[in-house]
Amino acid sequence: MSRSVGDGGTPTEAKVQFRLRISKGEDIAVGPGKVALLEQIGATGSITGAAKALGMSYRRAWLLVDSMNHTFRKPVVETLTGGSHGGGTAVTAIGEEVIRRYRRTESLARKAGAAEIAALLKLLSR
Amino acid sequence: MSRSVGDGGTPTEAKVQFRLRISKGEDIAVGPGKVALLEQIGATGSITGAAKALGMSYRRAWLLVDSMNHTFRKPVVETLTGGSHGGGTAVTAIGEEVIRRYRRTESLARKAGAAEIAALLKLLSR
Repeated sequence: MSRSVGDGGTPTEAKVQFRLRISKGEDIAVGPGKVALLEQIGATGSITGAAKALGMSYRRAWLLVDSMNHTFRKPVVETLTGGSHGGGTAVTAIGEEVIRRYRRTESLARKAGAAEIAALLKLLSR
Repeated sequence: MSRSVGDGGTPTEAKVQFRLRISKGEDIAVGPGKVALLEQIGATGSITGAAKALGMSYRRAWLLVDSMNHTFRKPVVETLTGGSHGGGTAVTAIGEEVIRRYRRTESLARKAGAAEIAALLKLLSR
């Protein structure tokens, strides 16, 4: 998540990124890349579509999904077979919860740190 | 900044990292690495000592300092010549402010996101 800051006394081009990453052992359970992938799978209905949207290979996207499916208690992505939609890939309820809580954490963090971040931005040269 | 979480219902080995990065144009103005470098320069009184403490080359540490000295309105690190200490390197007032505000932002963010992060950790498999 990044935001351009160009208001009033702050320099243009300054970007603020606030990134949450939760690791378990050697693996990153959830971080900016994995959450973006989940969101794109939800938006496109497929790993292929999500991979394209994010400019990553299908293989890499699949490996990230497979890793998340094992890191969390239940799969975050599921393959739908048959039915009126004739297959496709969907984000599960737990996957939606991961996205929601991750984005909410970022938003709360950004709000909590807003005054300090503004003060830091004022220290930058023009 | 990372923290091991091993209390009660949360899995052991889970680590939470919350990283703030402020970029300006192509350069990272301040992020976890640069703040750690400033802190180590303050602790050791030299770029050489800080570089050793962080396992980076003197050249890399010097380049990061030089970059910060230009990114901020005033230098964040200064070389002391002569005097009773006979030289050395010190973090300036603005450098101390950068460290303080950066760490404070992280702390506020972590507190604000604590409940959501705890909920995310509960979604991890054991």
